[in-house]
Amino acid sequence: MPRPSVREVIVETAVTEFHRHGFAACSVDTITRAAGVPKGSFYNHFKSKEDLGAEVVARYAENSGWRDGHGDLGPLDTLRARFGVMRDVLVAADFTRGCLIGNMGAERADHSPVIREQVAASLSSWSGHIAESIREAQRAGEVPADRDADRLGRFVLDAWEGAIIRAKVAKSAAPLDDFFAVVFGSLL
Amino acid sequence: MPRPSVREVIVETAVTEFHRHGFAACSVDTITRAAGVPKGSFYNHFKSKEDLGAEVVARYAENSGWRDGHGDLGPLDTLRARFGVMRDVLVAADFTRGCLIGNMGAERADHSPVIREQVAASLSSWSGHIAESIREAQRAGEVPADRDADRLGRFVLDAWEGAIIRAKVAKSAAPLDDFFAVVFGSLL
Repeated sequence: MPRPSVREVIVETAVTEFHRHGFAACSVDTITRAAGVPKGSFYNHFKSKEDLGAEVVARYAENSGWRDGHGDLGPLDTLRARFGVMRDVLVAADFTRGCLIGNMGAERADHSPVIREQVAASLSSWSGHIAESIREAQRAGEVPADRDADRLGRFVLDAWEGAIIRAKVAKSAAPLDDFFAVVFGSLL
Repeated sequence: MPRPSVREVIVETAVTEFHRHGFAACSVDTITRAAGVPKGSFYNHFKSKEDLGAEVVARYAENSGWRDGHGDLGPLDTLRARFGVMRDVLVAADFTRGCLIGNMGAERADHSPVIREQVAASLSSWSGHIAESIREAQRAGEVPADRDADRLGRFVLDAWEGAIIRAKVAKSAAPLDDFFAVVFGSLL
């Protein structure tokens, strides 16, 4: 197996560091130290911590495993199972960290255009996947055909991001359970 | 009019500073400088920046004006109007800053128990007001009586917090419009 590049080690380390501590609380120094690479090597690969932040958001979104299959479930049950996987991750982490995309949006939107744009793009992409699941559910007759799947896809993801923030502060799965009950019990 | 106390000046300044820059990006030094008070006076009034942060969350929540009346509107239209006031504030700020409660939750939940608990308490209190509006709407026959008003109150607020984060990164009212369309068009 080839040795991972310094660049790759920095990105993967920064995913963990930004998720654990937040963006402002990490410095190029703390990231390169955690990555075990020389601080001087950072600027060979990234223009700034902001640039690294944007790449970290993209990487985190790519690695979410959102489109993994869930056996023979119907479209709506598949969508529910995908959120269920994320719920399990949050429970296993004792509701720490939350969603790195939402965290970076809340913390950096006003201060870093490159991060802001990447968060917006990652949320759009993810919402698009949810909307596609809703359209499949509509074709299967599980969701009324006259509902706006794109709008619902965006709304459902925003509701999930808000529920995660509350789960973090309440240290409880109850906000996630509210999400499942309302989204899959009433809304869809 | 009595001169505001040093303590009061620090709290009001910190509401603005934390909202504008985020918690980690502010220091006791930058806050006391912005407040025009001696840095040394800070610790006469607060044990730590964390303690100030918790008080700032409580103050921001108290000042939200959420329970202001909206004339002769029915319960559901009153609820919509209250969210409409917040939408206007976000538009006027060009979608910067967002909700200080959500920001502090996303940034500080894992790092500051005192802030985490205050964010949880402020969200609970606010959700309770929304649930009360939904119960009034149920009594007025505007929302089906068999819906769980407390759960809907929590869910609707979480969906709003998520929509605000997306509005911040998209620099657009569209996520807020998604919220109004789904919550007041389909959900309630």
